[in-house]
Amino acid sequence: MVKNAGHKIKINMLLYLHVRIKIKDKTIETTTIKWDHENEKLILIDQRALPHKVTFLEYSSMEDVPEAIQTMVVRGAPAIGVTGVFGLLLKLREVREKESNEIADELEKAYNLLHATRPTAVDLEKMMKEWLSRVERKDFEWSEGEKLALEIFGKSKEECYQIGIHGAKLIKESDNILTHCNAGALATIDYGTALSPMRIANNNGINFHVWVDETRPRLQGARLTSWELFNEDIDHDVIVDGAAAYFMSVGKVNLVIVGTDRVTGDGWFANKIGTHGLAIAAKYYDIPFYVAMPWSTFMISSTKEDAQIEERSADEVRKCLQGHLLVNEESTARNPAFDWTKTELVTGFITPEGVLNYEQILELKS
Amino acid sequence: MVKNAGHKIKINMLLYLHVRIKIKDKTIETTTIKWDHENEKLILIDQRALPHKVTFLEYSSMEDVPEAIQTMVVRGAPAIGVTGVFGLLLKLREVREKESNEIADELEKAYNLLHATRPTAVDLEKMMKEWLSRVERKDFEWSEGEKLALEIFGKSKEECYQIGIHGAKLIKESDNILTHCNAGALATIDYGTALSPMRIANNNGINFHVWVDETRPRLQGARLTSWELFNEDIDHDVIVDGAAAYFMSVGKVNLVIVGTDRVTGDGWFANKIGTHGLAIAAKYYDIPFYVAMPWSTFMISSTKEDAQIEERSADEVRKCLQGHLLVNEESTARNPAFDWTKTELVTGFITPEGVLNYEQILELKS
Repeated sequence: MVKNAGHKIKINMLLYLHVRIKIKDKTIETTTIKWDHENEKLILIDQRALPHKVTFLEYSSMEDVPEAIQTMVVRGAPAIGVTGVFGLLLKLREVREKESNEIADELEKAYNLLHATRPTAVDLEKMMKEWLSRVERKDFEWSEGEKLALEIFGKSKEECYQIGIHGAKLIKESDNILTHCNAGALATIDYGTALSPMRIANNNGINFHVWVDETRPRLQGARLTSWELFNEDIDHDVIVDGAAAYFMSVGKVNLVIVGTDRVTGDGWFANKIGTHGLAIAAKYYDIPFYVAMPWSTFMISSTKEDAQIEERSADEVRKCLQGHLLVNEESTARNPAFDWTKTELVTGFITPEGVLNYEQILELKS
Repeated sequence: MVKNAGHKIKINMLLYLHVRIKIKDKTIETTTIKWDHENEKLILIDQRALPHKVTFLEYSSMEDVPEAIQTMVVRGAPAIGVTGVFGLLLKLREVREKESNEIADELEKAYNLLHATRPTAVDLEKMMKEWLSRVERKDFEWSEGEKLALEIFGKSKEECYQIGIHGAKLIKESDNILTHCNAGALATIDYGTALSPMRIANNNGINFHVWVDETRPRLQGARLTSWELFNEDIDHDVIVDGAAAYFMSVGKVNLVIVGTDRVTGDGWFANKIGTHGLAIAAKYYDIPFYVAMPWSTFMISSTKEDAQIEERSADEVRKCLQGHLLVNEESTARNPAFDWTKTELVTGFITPEGVLNYEQILELKS
């Protein structure tokens, strides 16, 4: 366990199975999410404290996991999906001596609690459902449950790596790439989605610059993406969200890559609030706009109508990182966490199977 | 002098020559900028401390005025224009016993210092130049200088009132109006530019709702606009800048009104960073987009090329209101304070002489 270790951390993405975090002169091997097989515990980096403090939190009971997702100890569509699976695994650990039908009931209750934490991202639902249906076929055997969870963990990581391999081909020397929120290693197990192509291109020796939207209200761009890029020695500048269209207007953005929380079968994608305005501005300036998407984020059977845009506490807007009150006490605020954009504004989706347009994805997956 | 008076302040706009500020049970009559004739002092509300503290700062020397503008004690294109004029008047006060040619030299030096504080807004340049050329014709007579400054002050206020009268006709019952930054009474002498139509419509009994972009990095929307609207009992919600396009996409914005810092003769307007993205999104959704503009902000002889976009300290982005560091120490930021938008994206300009399109303005003013 590393607590309050300061900000000088180096994440090295070269190893396939581990992320190396260098804290001062010490190197720790970890991932954003870790499963402690011996002690049967889930370990999460507390992302609320980044980039100033590196703290790992341990979870040995399912009951604490919904709050970890809700309060954003862990966030990012693939990362919360995998966390949800390990939350179910912790529940299985607790009830593994019971009868199968009782276990099934307990797991369903746990699923509902976990699923309610963040309604927009589809990875949570998809990954948990996959684990549940497969573990049921194995009669809720503990060792099978653990193996399946680690398999989903590994698949998610591998998909992000493949997104990087395919997406890196879009990045040219001297590019100015704009990204929004954090779709990096911290939003996944490793590599990231939108940041994975940048990591791979950087490892390949391509020089480019990244505009990091700060992404109010939770500032995942300012806090997390800039920290990941700093750790990777990738040239970047943080900007306020309102400045993105300005840098487009002066010819300083030639590529946009964002992540996504849900891609539906009826031609929409959801992503962090602010993405929609970027997509419209990129279209206005004919700037290629790519969405990095692991398969866990695509759900052909889901529509825009049956997905809910999560509205979080108004105090995330009224205050700065839950601290100092910005507005007068009486003024109210609204805080939708995501927005919707039509896939027709997307130049291409960077998937584990290549850069595809929406029609190609429909063909491939239907 | 009122210091740390708390946030319960009521600005009543019904009186023409004075803004009434109610602090608890006490009523003070003031304006955003005030000239103390008897003591020959300039008095400014310290806008950096709003909405939590109401503090008035006094200036009896020109030397302190550039810093007041630079650090945003006073901000808003018309307000800094009038402040610049009173800055020159303070210089005249200091040198009024000298020979005319010496006075002219001293005023020119003061003009250069004041003009350099904020290069984008044109009101500062225009109002100061007007005062200088007129006071020169009166041989730098002190009483003429004071009279001319108060005339410019009065004209600026009257123009804002007329903007309100004309713009109010655009506001219908149940409208959802989006605004950006603060183009309110605090950005002017009184009434505001973009907020003036809302004040008048509200006084006329029209019910509507305002989306207030928080406007990072300086949060003039969250801090100042929401406070003005609260004081006026106008229904409103603060949102992060990235949420504006989302509320447009769900049909919850049917009118956008913003201010401007410079309208050029070659078809561009500059305004607070973030405005450009709003204009593009409003066009995408066919939402009427209006720019409220006093004549002091229009300069037919100026072009986009000869105006500079001010870039302010990166720490305004890296920190929240100059306090808590948001990003890791090593990550850099860029902080352009304004952006440019083509006037073809503007449905109409709300001017003191009516709502006009850009071509009509060119005809009227050329």
